[in-house]
Amino acid sequence: MSRIRQDEVRQSGLVEGIGDDAALYGTKSDYLEVVCTDTMVEGVHFLKELSSPKEIGYKGLAVNVSDVAAMGGVPKYYLVAIAVPKTWSEQELAELYAGMDELAEPLRIDLIGGDTVSTSDKLVLTVTVVGEVKKGKQRLRKDARPGDAVFVTGTIGDSAAGLQALLGNLHPDRDAASFLINRHKRPVPQVKAGQIMSSADRVSLNDISDGLASELNEISESSCVKIVIDKTRLPMSDSMKSLNHEDAEKWMLFGGEDFELTGTVSRAVFTDLQKRCLAEGILLTEIGRVEEGPAGVFFTEDGKQTKLEKSGYNHFK
Amino acid sequence: MSRIRQDEVRQSGLVEGIGDDAALYGTKSDYLEVVCTDTMVEGVHFLKELSSPKEIGYKGLAVNVSDVAAMGGVPKYYLVAIAVPKTWSEQELAELYAGMDELAEPLRIDLIGGDTVSTSDKLVLTVTVVGEVKKGKQRLRKDARPGDAVFVTGTIGDSAAGLQALLGNLHPDRDAASFLINRHKRPVPQVKAGQIMSSADRVSLNDISDGLASELNEISESSCVKIVIDKTRLPMSDSMKSLNHEDAEKWMLFGGEDFELTGTVSRAVFTDLQKRCLAEGILLTEIGRVEEGPAGVFFTEDGKQTKLEKSGYNHFK
Repeated sequence: MSRIRQDEVRQSGLVEGIGDDAALYGTKSDYLEVVCTDTMVEGVHFLKELSSPKEIGYKGLAVNVSDVAAMGGVPKYYLVAIAVPKTWSEQELAELYAGMDELAEPLRIDLIGGDTVSTSDKLVLTVTVVGEVKKGKQRLRKDARPGDAVFVTGTIGDSAAGLQALLGNLHPDRDAASFLINRHKRPVPQVKAGQIMSSADRVSLNDISDGLASELNEISESSCVKIVIDKTRLPMSDSMKSLNHEDAEKWMLFGGEDFELTGTVSRAVFTDLQKRCLAEGILLTEIGRVEEGPAGVFFTEDGKQTKLEKSGYNHFK
Repeated sequence: MSRIRQDEVRQSGLVEGIGDDAALYGTKSDYLEVVCTDTMVEGVHFLKELSSPKEIGYKGLAVNVSDVAAMGGVPKYYLVAIAVPKTWSEQELAELYAGMDELAEPLRIDLIGGDTVSTSDKLVLTVTVVGEVKKGKQRLRKDARPGDAVFVTGTIGDSAAGLQALLGNLHPDRDAASFLINRHKRPVPQVKAGQIMSSADRVSLNDISDGLASELNEISESSCVKIVIDKTRLPMSDSMKSLNHEDAEKWMLFGGEDFELTGTVSRAVFTDLQKRCLAEGILLTEIGRVEEGPAGVFFTEDGKQTKLEKSGYNHFK
């Protein structure tokens, strides 16, 4: 790791970064630490033929930053462990780090540790992110209450459509392809939206890594409430609309990897949060409501409620 | 990760463990966070034919706990990211976690997060450990001063000899083989020794992962001091002595993976630290002294000083 260093220190609390046995940093007394780790494997989570080292690095950090954002937290530090095959050049490895820094720099996140080892086979990238959240302001999935509005940030399904375009299964026009593929390769973690959600008294929150249906089911189960969504209100990007594709709804509900945020908040404060998001250029859309349990996620169609399973439902079988 | 949980909470500061987007914990205001990450790859760091899943898990956590100990810190939490091939059964994976818990349970460390993904090839295990150290009591390698005593905990070289026994290149008697192989597979992180070192005003400290020569060179370079050791004082285990092997000295200087601690401390307090270690059953041996720079590690032989390079020197070429 000796060659992998930052030129600057971004977080004032950092005491020792990379170089000794471990990194050291201080924490404000009225804050909690937020920590998470995610692994990406070549051939499973990305294909080297389809993604540049820079894009792989960027996404490896982004998915973790998104988890911190979904806690209402602010990311501060990250550690990188890489098992790298000999087929990767030094230059490619440097680009992978550059991809992480492309996200870390504007967010002022410091690289504080890591381990680079060799492997005979596929590259495995494991990123750990540490952040902080004010005590009592953490956003958990168990905090949904009957009467809440269900919301989602940004537009959804783009990443799944982008992956199909990337794989050559979908042929959007050039602008739409560029937008959707970018959404897949370079998801923008919703740190600012998470901060806005952190300001409210109570918000249940998840980031959309495994698809809206899955994330809402997690909130529903953790909170022991029923969630009913209105499919016609799901926020769709212009690029997705331009596809006019029969699978669009599937991608929006089950696609995942958009790394937007979804959750629930009392209707009394939703409009205020929506305005504050808009002021930051963040779309916040109400897509349903929370009802008394039992747990389950439903949508209404033809006057009756249909259960939305964690992944897939009979419309797509 | 949903099936991987602990039955109990060990750290009182833990607010949310595994289950939400990220883990949350609180930190005492007069403490610093200590964080590190290490990766082990099947075929590189361990061979499945020679180590059980339990042993692999144990060591994956131990090497990180050792890094925290070398900071004078106390480990509190860990996160586990695994890329696992289909050739590993659910049972084996559970044993790998059990191996980690075998170390975590007595140390009261909580498993607070992780990610399990599939891979087509070798298992890659990445563990991140978070601990704490009292502000000002962190033990860095840059804190060696001329006049210091150079010390090492326990005995060294055992792990390297154990690896040779494991590989069938060395044939110790049964007791020695059992001891040495155990030292290789189940290193004991020197958390207690790190704590004792943390009580002194100033100690430079490293854990011995890459071999004594390498670790002392790091301290020498970071502190801009010269280190002179007396090879005859290197602490050798009875099992190693029983081998009476010409490579013993090589294993002690360059073998690594003993995960003992080495460092320097003022001569005025060394004897007191030694007594306090002994009271805890920890051998603390003075093996040399720190002199005015330039940086470099030397040993005295036949009246002249020979430089001890980071890895290998001409005696073994």
